[in-house]
Amino acid sequence: MKNVLLTIAYDGTDFCGWQRQPGQRSVQEEIEKALGVVCAQPIRINGTSRTDAGVHAYGQRANFTAEFGIPVERIPTAVNGILTSAAAEKSRKFSGDAAILAAEEVPAEFHARFNAIGKKYLYKINCSRRPDPFQRNYVYQPGRKLDLDAMKQTAEYLAGTKDFKCFQAAGGKEPETTVRTVYSARFLRLDERMIGFEIIGDGFLYNMVRIIAGTLVDIGMGRKNPGDMPKIIESKDRRLAGHTAPPQGLYLAEVFFDRGKLAEAIPAVPSDTDHRSRR
Amino acid sequence: MKNVLLTIAYDGTDFCGWQRQPGQRSVQEEIEKALGVVCAQPIRINGTSRTDAGVHAYGQRANFTAEFGIPVERIPTAVNGILTSAAAEKSRKFSGDAAILAAEEVPAEFHARFNAIGKKYLYKINCSRRPDPFQRNYVYQPGRKLDLDAMKQTAEYLAGTKDFKCFQAAGGKEPETTVRTVYSARFLRLDERMIGFEIIGDGFLYNMVRIIAGTLVDIGMGRKNPGDMPKIIESKDRRLAGHTAPPQGLYLAEVFFDRGKLAEAIPAVPSDTDHRSRR
Repeated sequence: MKNVLLTIAYDGTDFCGWQRQPGQRSVQEEIEKALGVVCAQPIRINGTSRTDAGVHAYGQRANFTAEFGIPVERIPTAVNGILTSAAAEKSRKFSGDAAILAAEEVPAEFHARFNAIGKKYLYKINCSRRPDPFQRNYVYQPGRKLDLDAMKQTAEYLAGTKDFKCFQAAGGKEPETTVRTVYSARFLRLDERMIGFEIIGDGFLYNMVRIIAGTLVDIGMGRKNPGDMPKIIESKDRRLAGHTAPPQGLYLAEVFFDRGKLAEAIPAVPSDTDHRSRR
Repeated sequence: MKNVLLTIAYDGTDFCGWQRQPGQRSVQEEIEKALGVVCAQPIRINGTSRTDAGVHAYGQRANFTAEFGIPVERIPTAVNGILTSAAAEKSRKFSGDAAILAAEEVPAEFHARFNAIGKKYLYKINCSRRPDPFQRNYVYQPGRKLDLDAMKQTAEYLAGTKDFKCFQAAGGKEPETTVRTVYSARFLRLDERMIGFEIIGDGFLYNMVRIIAGTLVDIGMGRKNPGDMPKIIESKDRRLAGHTAPPQGLYLAEVFFDRGKLAEAIPAVPSDTDHRSRR
């Protein structure tokens, strides 16, 4: 019996989300079907994160256990071949919209969800007023000039162990606690017109990253002030936070199973910023 | 009466192509409908190039004549607002998959197709074996290692005024002549894994750029040799050329109406290459 950990990328545009849903096209089901062919038996995979419809991933992880013949390192090529050709029969658009980037054997007791100690998400935002047709499913395009300094300043209030109930959407499974630790939250310049909001935490509430991104965009538009952020968090009131930014800007970037790799991923606090919010 | 020249970008994935077709979603019709609202009258536009289903553009041009109130420079924002919201009602995916990048007034007799003296196309190819889910509708991914040197060498045979009948697909309107002038044809490195085949010519036969791109990929895979190119062209036989590369790699990049701008766009021949094929 082998336990195999997969690294998976997908374009969420044409999926109902990660999780299997009757009569809909989910990432989980597409990959399970292809793995079933490669391993010659029905396969069930445990994904780390149940991403929503339209949300993307380039670092989703999932594991499965099975007895099978082909070498683990050959799984990506074999599965990707099926994902490309089987989907292509239905529609060119679906051909290869999910792919296995890597496969490795892990200890028998390893579980992609329960062993995850941290996740990194990236939320992409187009800061120019002009919409870009090629980005519509991949980037949030508010179509307004954004005050990036105000957004950066606000992002600094997020790091820490806090009750983030104000950023929790209704509809998810109610968690035992709404306290989460955000290890880092910062903006990256992706290109001339695009910024990325990167957030690393031990876990996230339902729609938490999208509501934080929406709140930051509201601040960038001048609808709220950077100084409002601590009050919003303290209120624990969803109505005081901003809008829920659309799914297409969100990417599950990386999952951490190891303290060392997580520590490496957390950016050092630059010496020229005000650290008050992190203490 | 104003004659307005538009610069248009679109993601061709969810369109049946540029040209109006009954019961299908064309770029032309989507833009005409939105312009009709903005100009408060039915509008018909003349596009420069009738791109096929799945083919993209970031430099399509089209003109229309009408009597209307709003300033020409306000057209892009007004039309894009409609393209975003009207399409969004049907599906998030369609929202803003076409956009007007610019609008300018031109002389009454100007026609976007008849006045075009040259066009630049870009064909994007992923040279890595690993498929990228985010590129499937935007880049050709043969999934094979390609011999770029052989492809570059072959591209040099293309420039010149020649009968390109071997690169003409059946099915288009039969042109008066299959002689065309290719001003330049070269490969560009787009990023670590992606190359672009850029071709500038006075006009192109039906599917010509895609068949040339497919022939170059065949050579990159070792199915043909660089030295075969002159023979293929001389044969005027479609069966001797390579496969038709898929539409999603192709971009209409620029249209030229002006000798000066066209001359500027043609790259100088680098001094370290063999010029034999250009003379």
